[in-house]
Amino acid sequence: MNQLNHAASRQVSIEDTFWRAYRHLVRGVVVPYQWEALNDRIADTEPSGAVRNFRIAAGEDEGAFTGMVFQDSDITKWLEAVAYLLAEQRDAELEQIADETIDLLARAQHDDGYLNTYFTIKAPGQRWTNLAECHELYCAGHLIEAAVAYWQATGKRKLLEVAERFVAHIDTVFGTEAGKLNGYPGHPEIELALMRLHEVSGNPRHLALARYFVEQRGARPHYYDIEYEKRGRVSHWDVHGRAWITTHKAYSQAHKPIAEQDAAVGHAVRLVYLYAGVAHLARVSGDAAKLNVCKAVWRNMVTRQMYVTGGIGAQVWGESFTCDYELPNDTAYTETCASVGLVFFARRMLEASRESGYADVLERALYNTVLAGIGLDGRSFFYVNPLETHPAGIRGNHKYEHVKPVRQRWFGCACCPPNVARLIASLDQYVYLVDDSIIYVNLYVAGEARLNAGTSRVTLRQQGNYPWRGDLRIVVEQADGFDGTIAVRLPDWCAAPEVRVNGDTVACSAAVDGYLHLPRVWHDGDTIELVLPMTVRRLTGHGKLRHAAGKVAVQRGPIVYCIEQADNGADLHALYLPRDAGFEVVDGAQIDASLAEKVVLQARGYRISHHESDDALYEFDAEAGDRVPQTLTFIPYFCWANRGEGEMRVWVNSD
Amino acid sequence: MNQLNHAASRQVSIEDTFWRAYRHLVRGVVVPYQWEALNDRIADTEPSGAVRNFRIAAGEDEGAFTGMVFQDSDITKWLEAVAYLLAEQRDAELEQIADETIDLLARAQHDDGYLNTYFTIKAPGQRWTNLAECHELYCAGHLIEAAVAYWQATGKRKLLEVAERFVAHIDTVFGTEAGKLNGYPGHPEIELALMRLHEVSGNPRHLALARYFVEQRGARPHYYDIEYEKRGRVSHWDVHGRAWITTHKAYSQAHKPIAEQDAAVGHAVRLVYLYAGVAHLARVSGDAAKLNVCKAVWRNMVTRQMYVTGGIGAQVWGESFTCDYELPNDTAYTETCASVGLVFFARRMLEASRESGYADVLERALYNTVLAGIGLDGRSFFYVNPLETHPAGIRGNHKYEHVKPVRQRWFGCACCPPNVARLIASLDQYVYLVDDSIIYVNLYVAGEARLNAGTSRVTLRQQGNYPWRGDLRIVVEQADGFDGTIAVRLPDWCAAPEVRVNGDTVACSAAVDGYLHLPRVWHDGDTIELVLPMTVRRLTGHGKLRHAAGKVAVQRGPIVYCIEQADNGADLHALYLPRDAGFEVVDGAQIDASLAEKVVLQARGYRISHHESDDALYEFDAEAGDRVPQTLTFIPYFCWANRGEGEMRVWVNSD
Repeated sequence: MNQLNHAASRQVSIEDTFWRAYRHLVRGVVVPYQWEALNDRIADTEPSGAVRNFRIAAGEDEGAFTGMVFQDSDITKWLEAVAYLLAEQRDAELEQIADETIDLLARAQHDDGYLNTYFTIKAPGQRWTNLAECHELYCAGHLIEAAVAYWQATGKRKLLEVAERFVAHIDTVFGTEAGKLNGYPGHPEIELALMRLHEVSGNPRHLALARYFVEQRGARPHYYDIEYEKRGRVSHWDVHGRAWITTHKAYSQAHKPIAEQDAAVGHAVRLVYLYAGVAHLARVSGDAAKLNVCKAVWRNMVTRQMYVTGGIGAQVWGESFTCDYELPNDTAYTETCASVGLVFFARRMLEASRESGYADVLERALYNTVLAGIGLDGRSFFYVNPLETHPAGIRGNHKYEHVKPVRQRWFGCACCPPNVARLIASLDQYVYLVDDSIIYVNLYVAGEARLNAGTSRVTLRQQGNYPWRGDLRIVVEQADGFDGTIAVRLPDWCAAPEVRVNGDTVACSAAVDGYLHLPRVWHDGDTIELVLPMTVRRLTGHGKLRHAAGKVAVQRGPIVYCIEQADNGADLHALYLPRDAGFEVVDGAQIDASLAEKVVLQARGYRISHHESDDALYEFDAEAGDRVPQTLTFIPYFCWANRGEGEMRVWVNSD
Repeated sequence: MNQLNHAASRQVSIEDTFWRAYRHLVRGVVVPYQWEALNDRIADTEPSGAVRNFRIAAGEDEGAFTGMVFQDSDITKWLEAVAYLLAEQRDAELEQIADETIDLLARAQHDDGYLNTYFTIKAPGQRWTNLAECHELYCAGHLIEAAVAYWQATGKRKLLEVAERFVAHIDTVFGTEAGKLNGYPGHPEIELALMRLHEVSGNPRHLALARYFVEQRGARPHYYDIEYEKRGRVSHWDVHGRAWITTHKAYSQAHKPIAEQDAAVGHAVRLVYLYAGVAHLARVSGDAAKLNVCKAVWRNMVTRQMYVTGGIGAQVWGESFTCDYELPNDTAYTETCASVGLVFFARRMLEASRESGYADVLERALYNTVLAGIGLDGRSFFYVNPLETHPAGIRGNHKYEHVKPVRQRWFGCACCPPNVARLIASLDQYVYLVDDSIIYVNLYVAGEARLNAGTSRVTLRQQGNYPWRGDLRIVVEQADGFDGTIAVRLPDWCAAPEVRVNGDTVACSAAVDGYLHLPRVWHDGDTIELVLPMTVRRLTGHGKLRHAAGKVAVQRGPIVYCIEQADNGADLHALYLPRDAGFEVVDGAQIDASLAEKVVLQARGYRISHHESDDALYEFDAEAGDRVPQTLTFIPYFCWANRGEGEMRVWVNSD
């Protein structure tokens, strides 16, 4: 399956209306804008210095290092996104810029393979002295990911060779053997990157190095302490106090060995990046124990600590998980990158298990929090994705300091926009999963896929207008008598799916792990019809989830909805959705131009209106407020904050 | 009225069951414990160093300064509380300790009158160089308050002379005259203290100095900036960043002149201390403009920014006000000291206006947040008084870092316990207000008062069991034909008060500004009967107050109630109080020994119970949960957290 995945990915075209728009934005706006930013050509923003850092490191420019210790990763994440764009459609101009950038990276690489501009320019001689805080292996990971993607997209090996040389160097530095450092990264990323590299290289050293980093994590005596003492108790950044990362080991999931972990703790992005790597390693090495750890952590995360929008990491402190059932809506951190990472983790779990529950979460994170992170214009972004906002409160109470009432142009720590870009640009890799002669259909995204399955070459054409309509078709265009199975995912949000093959109904009750397996000798023109009725559904929170008590969230298909002040007036807390209210499906264009081609929902609700005095904050024995009928307008959560500043909430009062 | 107030205060005895218990705690536990703390004799706590600092400053000990820059005020606040205790009941041993402490303070005073151990020991030569941050004038204020109280209690002038010498020195340093510093304190306190001093000294310089500090505040060019530049841009503490107090001038209400202020902003304690002083100044100097500013600030505070418990200062950031209608329950800061200060401010407004609305707020803060700040054992304290707690969340989400799930023994910054102590010990000063021949009855506290009113000497005896019972009697014991008015306060919480004089009903509709004036020639034995029916009342929040939407608070008499896990089980968010549920009044002893002699309320409510799976955080189209009938037990808010750790909430779901 390993190789197939990639072959497949490179032959899945996306012709889907919904996603083409986003991919168009990534190609036309995000990636070019980011390139300008990386070259310090955006007015009124902090210079990135990312390209210049490489020039300085290559000896071709002079000056000081600019930016964060992980600034290099901005370049490699950009290169990775570019690779996916080139895979979809060659672009000579873009490819030339990328090639030149790769040449620059190669020139900045040390003779021994080492490559990191921070340590080259700013802290020479301090290589590998502060793994806990300094993102050296994290940057290496992003370099590796870019290299793999660029090679897959273009067939050009230069960046792959840069990465492999760096990995070979890393392999000489780290390990349990005598004379090697027993360290591992404070910010996981290289684990999943090495697994990707191993997938294309087949080099057992790459797998072994990934396993080393995973298995060494959290070992005693603790490496963070060892290196801290060794470097004279110097810390690089004091996030919540001196040497905080070193001290607070759960922040980077290094508080105990992975074999002993069973819950989502610490920095959310680190957790999902780490476990994406662990799950990949578990699958490739057939390591059931590691997979069970992944499952336990996953289970804790999605059944105790995940927002209904697929957001994770509920608190700003450490951008981290909180504890079971602690998911406040208004102070939510729910970083965009964390949901991108959740998609990575989910994909690996899906690959390891073929259980559609992982795809359900993947889809929830993707269509809701990930897309909420990027404005409909492709030029404005959210780093933090609350489920409830009240702009006056945001300005008045500093507990909301991390929450922005309106979308931001870019970020000082510019991790989220490029992460969204590389995910959207590589979406074709998420649609299908092929395991020998079984083709799993994970996402409903219109387009053509040419897949190798079993011994056959199969072309599938998905048609439909997901996520807005649930009537979908998968037409087999070339199969040549493919004797195999097409396994279609029956999403968790769909109560009564119907599946027909060439007009004959197949009982969905036969689904296994959420997939309806359709074994057959497939011929050209065979057609699978799926009817996934997109009834509007109310979601309620678990009884322990006090932040959702007395409230419902509204979902249609994979899309979670919210109410905004722009449509519903201020004081959203006074609005109620009756239990028996039906929903009307409305063309978004009727509501606002920005909502064109999106499905908006309306229901008859009411507003509790009090005849209160402006002179009193509290009233004794007040009459019950009037229930003033009002149409409630729900828009997709991912579309919020595209019409100026205003209140928003996902969880709406229910009577 | 000025002098009368004090004469009166010294002749009001408190025989009230409720308050005698607290005053007993203050005398028997809080004040002795604090003395041990001030002398560093409490094991396992940070040393206070407060007494030792004075010894070092007096040249009688050696070593470094210990504690906060305002450590001296711990001594003077303690002395002030001691003064009130001595006023109530002489205690030779306690008085000797106090006298010796006063002698020590006198020996630590410089020849020029200056007295501050921090600047004497730690920063000699830096006097008056950092008014914004260093609490020099704040400490002077507490010294003055203690001096006034001690003189009133004992007739001993030594501390008063120390204070007057210090004030004379301050008067040579500050002012608008050439050669003087144009500064004023970053932490207000000296303003109200100078007004208290002026009240006993009659010295016009004391009044003028208070006026100077009030009127200079916020003038441009800004003094904080001037002194910051002058001392070379050094800052003493970087609370939220370097020189934050200097930069963020609204924190200390110095962002603009007081004449231009109209809302409660910044550090809550500073605001109420400042405006207590301004209101006192406005009254004494007949300054209507200043009184109007006080009224505007008050109005904004109580109609937009005050919790139903009388707590103020909704956020931990800067221990400060937020903005209109931003009163989150679970992250509330609502410092105990801020409500103590609110009582100070309210008292001055009441004295200036004779409008009972100020007494209503005073009573709300006093019986709820102030008392919540001290445990029923007198040995444990809350600094922060949330209206909702969820212990697991508190441990899991750092946004609750300032909130403690259980009461604390003492504090590093030990401001709250002594502040509660001095308020409770001086409560006799709050019961009556005499203006010529009108005796205002502000608080219902059983005991005997000997008052000078008009040309008469009147003795009143209040009887009753407030705050638990609303049937009260005020018996005139000695009046000698007092031709005057007794004006009884009709509390805001009472819908249908009844008042009888010698058995004859007086129409309460005739009340003016919340007081029913009873003019008469009063003779011995004349009796006022008040029936203030303590029906249990539901409070609702203003429609803009989203934190109270769909919820009610429960109040009986002046007492605000809450529900606790100890009585109601976990998951308080699942409990509902039906709109039509009646309340049963229960003897607290039946619920728990700690609630003996307190009124507990019970109502038939229900718990929403879901048959949910532990495997899912969210459920589609769930059945409405079962309404499982449950008795809801409400205990007084001030009694919460006396039975171990558990959930609590004031605002309860209402259907």
